[in-house]
Amino acid sequence: MRLAVLGAGSVGTSVVNLASEYGHEVVALADSSSATVDPTGIDIEAVLERKAGDDPVGDREPDAAFDADYDVLVEATPTTLGDAEPGFTHAKRALEADRHVVLANKGPVAERYEEIQALAADSAGSIRFEATVGGAIPVLSTIEDCTPNAVSAVRGVLNGTANFILTRMAAEGLDYEHVLTEAQDLGVAEADPTFDVDGTDAALKFVILANVLNDGGFSLEDADVDGIQNIPGSALELAAEDGRTIRLIGEASRESVRVGPRLVPEHGALAVTGTQNIVEIETRHAGSLASSGRGAGGPETATAVLSDVGRLPEL
Amino acid sequence: MRLAVLGAGSVGTSVVNLASEYGHEVVALADSSSATVDPTGIDIEAVLERKAGDDPVGDREPDAAFDADYDVLVEATPTTLGDAEPGFTHAKRALEADRHVVLANKGPVAERYEEIQALAADSAGSIRFEATVGGAIPVLSTIEDCTPNAVSAVRGVLNGTANFILTRMAAEGLDYEHVLTEAQDLGVAEADPTFDVDGTDAALKFVILANVLNDGGFSLEDADVDGIQNIPGSALELAAEDGRTIRLIGEASRESVRVGPRLVPEHGALAVTGTQNIVEIETRHAGSLASSGRGAGGPETATAVLSDVGRLPEL
Repeated sequence: MRLAVLGAGSVGTSVVNLASEYGHEVVALADSSSATVDPTGIDIEAVLERKAGDDPVGDREPDAAFDADYDVLVEATPTTLGDAEPGFTHAKRALEADRHVVLANKGPVAERYEEIQALAADSAGSIRFEATVGGAIPVLSTIEDCTPNAVSAVRGVLNGTANFILTRMAAEGLDYEHVLTEAQDLGVAEADPTFDVDGTDAALKFVILANVLNDGGFSLEDADVDGIQNIPGSALELAAEDGRTIRLIGEASRESVRVGPRLVPEHGALAVTGTQNIVEIETRHAGSLASSGRGAGGPETATAVLSDVGRLPEL
Repeated sequence: MRLAVLGAGSVGTSVVNLASEYGHEVVALADSSSATVDPTGIDIEAVLERKAGDDPVGDREPDAAFDADYDVLVEATPTTLGDAEPGFTHAKRALEADRHVVLANKGPVAERYEEIQALAADSAGSIRFEATVGGAIPVLSTIEDCTPNAVSAVRGVLNGTANFILTRMAAEGLDYEHVLTEAQDLGVAEADPTFDVDGTDAALKFVILANVLNDGGFSLEDADVDGIQNIPGSALELAAEDGRTIRLIGEASRESVRVGPRLVPEHGALAVTGTQNIVEIETRHAGSLASSGRGAGGPETATAVLSDVGRLPEL
């Protein structure tokens, strides 16, 4: 398939880097300021060098990406809340042109799910979004294969930054502020870590899951969200005395979406360590399925994007 | 899709039972002695009642199933080794008639992989076999989505009977013979448990995985296999003193297939308990993905069969 990639951050550049390994070609790459377009496939090495040197990715306007002859639009621009723009309109344009859309951007499917699905229903193209939930872990494809009807709930740890912080607090007896600084130094937490530590990032993912289970009906404001910023080190010590620890756990069911710190058995499945993520899918006929792995990262998220591309039908 | 189901054991009857929930119709069901065929869909309730009462499933010869107008042949007859018959020929007939095949029977893809794939290549139909490895756990579809090239190895626990026995031996300090009897009483081990306890069942699954990773090249005789029959209770006690336990672990890589008892950290991912299974997939770009859940059982295996049906293209 021929890919037009929007977004040249770590996910976008990883998709460009790995596309040929999966048998696909990149015909356009755009960020917010420029685009490069080549129907025979963009010069990947040159583009990655320009990006590494902080040069523009190309010499065209960003919009030129939509003029390329592409099969799949990969939307990997930063997630935005509320109206989910410009990501929503990017996806809309591709679907209205009867092209496929693969999202790494959570906005359209967290905040405007029914609208984007309606556009997909009217399009010869389809929309897929494995990369929006759990990075490399195959969560949405597993639910799709089970059929969403057969899944009653999904729970787990879907934010690696918060999980890393809680793991280190428990392991070292340090307080939140101290470990947050450590996480930022390691690149595990952003300069502005708000969405990771206040539970918003995890909540977006569980909202997407609730939308998949219920065919819509949820947006971020429907989620009941608590973060980890107010957990004292003493809470983790107390938990440990009882054979437990604390993790930022989310749950999506047919009724609700909730994210918050919870006590979990310290050796149980949900007590993943470091930046690992885990998802437990409750199925009607096959009990509980658990999948864990790397929930974030450029190459990891790119593999989810490229898995989705592989599942799209020929146009 | 219209399904012709061969095999009326726990997997076959579960497929028949769940098919309509997944939007499919059963037009034929056969076991080794009879068949029932109905182009408008077999009377599922009546058939399950006859089976429960040990009556023949139908009034036709078993072969009549092949005369039905079906899209997918579900091969759920008992796994056989060596020539993998009659399962292999069942699959061959469907593929030569340009129909799809979904296997729950491990024989054809463990023992004659290249042959069955060659038949599939020449057919308008495809062959899928998620149900042959890990029951409800989506192992093969995960590897397929990653692309087999991007997977370097797969390891894990794929036999619930052996895992249950080892879990109970460790928990109760009992010896193998005692726990085996308990397992048989619970229906977790068969009257003849040989293939579960000598590692053959697990080995067949890891041989199938090696065939998927390497596009063929392996059969059961290539696997290096040790079972659990000779593990004394004292070995588990010793392991526990060191924070470890013993599990029957298999591994398939690009070079080899091995199954045998191994020491694992007692709280680690591979130390699944009871009849649970777990698979760790080592990927090139996304680290390690782990999936666990129920690796066996009628309904569990049927969900894997029906997931496969859902992934087949229209004929």
